[in-house]
Amino acid sequence: MAYNLLKGKRGVIFGALNEQSIAWKVAERAVEEGAQIVLTNTPVALRIGAVSKLSEKCNTIIIPADATSVEDLENLVDKAMVHLGGKIDFVLHSVGMSPNIRKNIPYEAIDYNNFFKTIDISALSFHKLLQVLYEKDAMAEYGSVIALSYIAAQRAVEGYSDMAEAKAMLESIARSFGAIYGRKRKVRINTVSQSPTLTTAGQGIAGMADMYNHTNNLSPLGNASAEECADYVVTLFSDLTRKVTMQNLYHDGGYSTMGISAEVLKK
Amino acid sequence: MAYNLLKGKRGVIFGALNEQSIAWKVAERAVEEGAQIVLTNTPVALRIGAVSKLSEKCNTIIIPADATSVEDLENLVDKAMVHLGGKIDFVLHSVGMSPNIRKNIPYEAIDYNNFFKTIDISALSFHKLLQVLYEKDAMAEYGSVIALSYIAAQRAVEGYSDMAEAKAMLESIARSFGAIYGRKRKVRINTVSQSPTLTTAGQGIAGMADMYNHTNNLSPLGNASAEECADYVVTLFSDLTRKVTMQNLYHDGGYSTMGISAEVLKK
Amino acid sequence: MAYNLLKGKRGVIFGALNEQSIAWKVAERAVEEGAQIVLTNTPVALRIGAVSKLSEKCNTIIIPADATSVEDLENLVDKAMVHLGGKIDFVLHSVGMSPNIRKNIPYEAIDYNNFFKTIDISALSFHKLLQVLYEKDAMAEYGSVIALSYIAAQRAVEGYSDMAEAKAMLESIARSFGAIYGRKRKVRINTVSQSPTLTTAGQGIAGMADMYNHTNNLSPLGNASAEECADYVVTLFSDLTRKVTMQNLYHDGGYSTMGISAEVLKK
Amino acid sequence: MAYNLLKGKRGVIFGALNEQSIAWKVAERAVEEGAQIVLTNTPVALRIGAVSKLSEKCNTIIIPADATSVEDLENLVDKAMVHLGGKIDFVLHSVGMSPNIRKNIPYEAIDYNNFFKTIDISALSFHKLLQVLYEKDAMAEYGSVIALSYIAAQRAVEGYSDMAEAKAMLESIARSFGAIYGRKRKVRINTVSQSPTLTTAGQGIAGMADMYNHTNNLSPLGNASAEECADYVVTLFSDLTRKVTMQNLYHDGGYSTMGISAEVLKK
Repeated sequence: MAYNLLKGKRGVIFGALNEQSIAWKVAERAVEEGAQIVLTNTPVALRIGAVSKLSEKCNTIIIPADATSVEDLENLVDKAMVHLGGKIDFVLHSVGMSPNIRKNIPYEAIDYNNFFKTIDISALSFHKLLQVLYEKDAMAEYGSVIALSYIAAQRAVEGYSDMAEAKAMLESIARSFGAIYGRKRKVRINTVSQSPTLTTAGQGIAGMADMYNHTNNLSPLGNASAEECADYVVTLFSDLTRKVTMQNLYHDGGYSTMGISAEVLKK
Repeated sequence: MAYNLLKGKRGVIFGALNEQSIAWKVAERAVEEGAQIVLTNTPVALRIGAVSKLSEKCNTIIIPADATSVEDLENLVDKAMVHLGGKIDFVLHSVGMSPNIRKNIPYEAIDYNNFFKTIDISALSFHKLLQVLYEKDAMAEYGSVIALSYIAAQRAVEGYSDMAEAKAMLESIARSFGAIYGRKRKVRINTVSQSPTLTTAGQGIAGMADMYNHTNNLSPLGNASAEECADYVVTLFSDLTRKVTMQNLYHDGGYSTMGISAEVLKK
Repeated sequence: MAYNLLKGKRGVIFGALNEQSIAWKVAERAVEEGAQIVLTNTPVALRIGAVSKLSEKCNTIIIPADATSVEDLENLVDKAMVHLGGKIDFVLHSVGMSPNIRKNIPYEAIDYNNFFKTIDISALSFHKLLQVLYEKDAMAEYGSVIALSYIAAQRAVEGYSDMAEAKAMLESIARSFGAIYGRKRKVRINTVSQSPTLTTAGQGIAGMADMYNHTNNLSPLGNASAEECADYVVTLFSDLTRKVTMQNLYHDGGYSTMGISAEVLKK
Repeated sequence: MAYNLLKGKRGVIFGALNEQSIAWKVAERAVEEGAQIVLTNTPVALRIGAVSKLSEKCNTIIIPADATSVEDLENLVDKAMVHLGGKIDFVLHSVGMSPNIRKNIPYEAIDYNNFFKTIDISALSFHKLLQVLYEKDAMAEYGSVIALSYIAAQRAVEGYSDMAEAKAMLESIARSFGAIYGRKRKVRINTVSQSPTLTTAGQGIAGMADMYNHTNNLSPLGNASAEECADYVVTLFSDLTRKVTMQNLYHDGGYSTMGISAEVLKK
């Protein structure tokens, strides 16, 4: 069901790879809600993914960009504004990757070159994006920027490795830049801390299926799906949430405030 | 602007007194978004307030209820379901009063009979409401219940007195009951921690104008108004936020995660 | 091992019942560390418990007091200062009881008369104690007051029932009163959020053994024992922690920041 | 006053520069409390600082190490164990520097090469240290590792720039590594979030004096000094706090839970 929540709004969506991607669902929902969007991902992701299918569906273009490259981001923002015909109202940052996780290196023995890649891709890219947007004054007043996070930023999750630090940093960037961007240009910046989701990225984490089932059992409403995340993100892009900023918002069926469940203990 | 976000939904709104009330704005917005609602408040509030004007505007009835009376709440829920023609999809709990604050008794010398009244009205009423809804199985699946809170639940705010304890308890009830109601009937329960708002209730707090100005200056987006709160609450009542539960959600222009602002320090 | 950490200090310990009690261990450790103490508990607890044995061991007196009675607290504080020969340096509040838990009434059907008793005994007693201390100016500068709490104040724990609300309120009182007492008289007030502990009180909670084992498995260092809690509390009474105030301090082997453990998932 | 709290314990202290340094005070207090310690800092700091004076006072050696160099850390840990005659009981990580702050580059225009240096020095060095300790099995059972943090990790503090992200990451490392090191070897890892302190490092932050005064006024007990921080850290190194791990512990006179103070508003 669509409500025209984003009618007339212009957005940029990072990180759609295939139909499982949260970013894919957000793109679809944003367009359903009346927005015009531009898609972006790395050249590699564009090659292996199915993004051109999504761009057709959304009747839009793909602007390739490596989110760790300020130059690429500048090019992206310039072209997006041209294509969309004005300032940007919303941005989704769904970007993350840890070579340490990919190579199954345990957290207590991580490789530090990998670590810097994890941080650059998964957290610093968010600062770079915000800095480019800010310098170009590319966001419309009360524009909304959202990055996807995970509870490992606050609590130890075995197997999530150095992505925990990346997400902690990501959430910090939302607060630090949010204070400045809010005061100066009324732009709001938040992170959504989502349930484990069976995306291509999620499935790269060792023990993901166990984590998924554990949180699904423990969360009173069960895990939130990619589709539900897209619904939620749409509300945060809309004009109805204009005073929500610098927050980390749990979208997790209640997992984050669930302590001990008698039912789960019984199992 | 309206989006039909609550089309076909049925709601109960506690606490509208006059046009300044957050509950008043929520009622108006809920109806604009397509909901059918029922209004309720205490007999005293109904006498001194302007609620009948609101009921006309919203084309609905008022069912008087003292939120501390289980009997009144049972009557309310029964009649609301009859009037609305089915189970309830959303409820707003905007109820709070501290005799200690009204009588300007300092926190370090509060009267304990007053304290129990503060708790009964401002926090326990929320449990009573949830218990009545639960026992009567009155909420529709994925129904949404929201209570209004304030950051004094987490940080010491001079002048807010025993309402701090009431709000801490209110937020705890949202988590505790949310775990049960979520698992058993898929109902979500959240609190919205709102900026100081210049309502009749807010204005009863000593030093409210100073508090309002202080947070307005410190919050990067400024304080959130009652209208903006209504917008936000509408998203939380909608089907787009179905997996958000047991959360305390700050709606405060960034105040809660703002530490030190150079600009504010200069002043 | 003893360090003379509390040499020359005067303290009041609430809540020792028998050798399992955390308060019992705190009393023993405080005396070992050089403090002079006074013990207190309700007349009923004094009858059923073994407190006289503790008072002999600690070479001190017992002053009966119902912690919900301001009169009793006034009498206690007066007599304690006389017995101890001066202002009080530290106080332990280890007081809690829920008739709803005792009678196995589920949280979604609690009795509200019981609820007020839970609150009065487990949370409001802390405010009453602080108010009496404050009015009598009975605490020495940089005195330290500690109340025992539990993580159910922040996260839903099935079976902990309305004690969750009591603990949320208790922690709020520590902040609210801590702000005033700190500014005016340099007294610090904190709560210690302790692992589930197999005390007489703890064992009254349905499913306590399961909860104990669950957190013991999940906490990287295992649950904290009553003895370990006493050690920790002694540091918080000492002069070495003078600027720690208005905090809720987890003493739980890491449970509170543990998310998902691969080892636990395997089981 | 000394208590022999660390009698027989062996420690390594990073980051003492001069008498203002928190690490300096921790080194002095640890030795007063009966510990044997080893000092370390970068070659540059050793040249410009007064560390040799401290080493004489503490009757110990200085082992130069760049905390970003795994090789240096390995050499440090090896030599420290030889000098101390056994496994290490406690470590203080007081290491942080931001070239972006030093060069007065605003947060919204930070240089990303600088950023990586900030992270490497101020946060990743902590992981490297822990990894070296873990691989060499250099910590004694129930050993205690502490890193110094600041509230900018949780709330936006203008002027603290990319150190906010470094501290957020530092606290995340304490949780993530604490879960592993706790379970496997019973080592506890915490961060202490300290008031602004007028150290050489602190004074490098633009507007530090204003920040210091602001928090000093707002904190009910005033800011915590370097000496008081040393006292607190000593308790966290001792055997009395064995079950405290993976926590971020505020040592700040109550600042972190202080919301609005009527007194401060009046000014």
